[in-house]
Amino acid sequence: MSILVVGSVAFDTLKTPYGERQKILGGAATYFSLSASHFTDVRVVAVVGEDFTAENEAVMNKRGVDTRGIQHAKGKTFHWTGEYGENVNEAKTLNTELNVFETFEPSIPAEYHNSDYLFLANIDPVLQVRVRDAMPNVQLVGGDTMNYWIGGHRQNLEKMLQRVDVLLINDTEAKMLADDSSLPRAARKVMELGPRALVIKHGEYGATIFFRDGQFAGGHHPFRAPALPLDEVRDPTGAGDSFAGGFMGYIASQGEVNRRVLKQAMFYGGVMGSFAVERFGTERLQSLTREEIEARFQIFRELTHLD
Amino acid sequence: MSILVVGSVAFDTLKTPYGERQKILGGAATYFSLSASHFTDVRVVAVVGEDFTAENEAVMNKRGVDTRGIQHAKGKTFHWTGEYGENVNEAKTLNTELNVFETFEPSIPAEYHNSDYLFLANIDPVLQVRVRDAMPNVQLVGGDTMNYWIGGHRQNLEKMLQRVDVLLINDTEAKMLADDSSLPRAARKVMELGPRALVIKHGEYGATIFFRDGQFAGGHHPFRAPALPLDEVRDPTGAGDSFAGGFMGYIASQGEVNRRVLKQAMFYGGVMGSFAVERFGTERLQSLTREEIEARFQIFRELTHLD
Repeated sequence: MSILVVGSVAFDTLKTPYGERQKILGGAATYFSLSASHFTDVRVVAVVGEDFTAENEAVMNKRGVDTRGIQHAKGKTFHWTGEYGENVNEAKTLNTELNVFETFEPSIPAEYHNSDYLFLANIDPVLQVRVRDAMPNVQLVGGDTMNYWIGGHRQNLEKMLQRVDVLLINDTEAKMLADDSSLPRAARKVMELGPRALVIKHGEYGATIFFRDGQFAGGHHPFRAPALPLDEVRDPTGAGDSFAGGFMGYIASQGEVNRRVLKQAMFYGGVMGSFAVERFGTERLQSLTREEIEARFQIFRELTHLD
Repeated sequence: MSILVVGSVAFDTLKTPYGERQKILGGAATYFSLSASHFTDVRVVAVVGEDFTAENEAVMNKRGVDTRGIQHAKGKTFHWTGEYGENVNEAKTLNTELNVFETFEPSIPAEYHNSDYLFLANIDPVLQVRVRDAMPNVQLVGGDTMNYWIGGHRQNLEKMLQRVDVLLINDTEAKMLADDSSLPRAARKVMELGPRALVIKHGEYGATIFFRDGQFAGGHHPFRAPALPLDEVRDPTGAGDSFAGGFMGYIASQGEVNRRVLKQAMFYGGVMGSFAVERFGTERLQSLTREEIEARFQIFRELTHLD
């Protein structure tokens, strides 16, 4: 099965306690694609500028990612500059140059219209809605958003929420979106806005998936996947998008969506997130093998299973 | 198998978003005892004042807890006053009246000397060391501490750490004790100070147990137990001590200590913590049945297990 992702392809300039990098390949759609590519066929819709090289694009193609949906526009590529302190869960944005991303108008190539799954990475909900409505036949839609859209673009965001099956956000975003400090209560309120399931990411504590009653075969109790206790988080950038890539990529590889598949997908999400942060940028996602992924899946199992 | 706990028996005056209570039964040793009493025989060493009634003591006796080690001193019982806001993980202390607890000198009754397990609840590490040295034949020692002792009584605390097998603390305390912001690294550093295993409690995200290499049969990978996503945390007081009671109580009920038992104990710890916060004070721990405990254990399993 194939999955289409729409989102940012960018350059990141960043500093962490372990070093710094200038204008390395980044962006939500990039991390998502490379992560999901270990499970299924991936197609990307994004925009880049004239500074985006053939080598940059080849990073995705080498992993089999179809990049025909990446538009090359006049100007520069989206460029994020930020740093992380000792608390790796908090990024400090120093500069955001949207560049060609500012006027991004997603356009879905004809060859992508038969995609089976869709992931709306964190972009303007107006664009997310447009893309989702252009792909009426997908089997499942996943989506991401952020505090910026929750705080200031509520109406547009609610239209987007009515059109996604699974929303993936973090604790702070969930509490903000529901205006409720209790996670399970917040989860229920968010699902009342549309999503049939909600993945709330807890950073180093893992992630929990909540299910709307009667929406997926196999029960509706929540399910919690761990994160790996890592000695060194070299670069937290892209952890959430890599989680989403593992989660959605695994679902797409299974061809059916039920509670059992979604639970496994939560583990694969955590596995991919744990790999992403081990090295700077997308480096680790590029070099990974399926054997390494399965070995780490087993570690996640040992970390949580009684037997 | 029997377990001896030394710690505070107190009165709590508290306010939460769900209500307030005046001078209700509390204290670390109280929560620990009531929780552990669902698994094994418990004996308490503590001190109370003249305002501590026969009815107060009967709460423990009704659960089979041996209270012959509770000293009745002239003066008033330790009285804590505090409140919780929307963030239930943070207690705000409004007043601490140590009263008879200020000059507490633990004395272990002769009938307690054959206890098989020992738990040193959060008191002055000088006293913890004294009690531990008076009980040389116990099979396993668990211990708790807090930021006050970590910050200002380091030398005494290190003597205590050399004498406990399993330390139970929270994230902030672990990072402070190790002076390291990475949890797995902090865990290793804390275990180098003495404990063979370290339980780090993450509040609503559960708890992780780290093992020192080669100390317990069955491997040394960490293990993470969940917490229950609860809609309403009515009163968070005693959650950590109830966790410790379930954890140590289950271990004592098994008679042997290996990785398998410690993993199950982590689940029972989480189960007892989740019950404790459902109602004010010790109310829920008093009314609980073993059937309810086992049913919730199964929910914890469903929450985390793939199969």
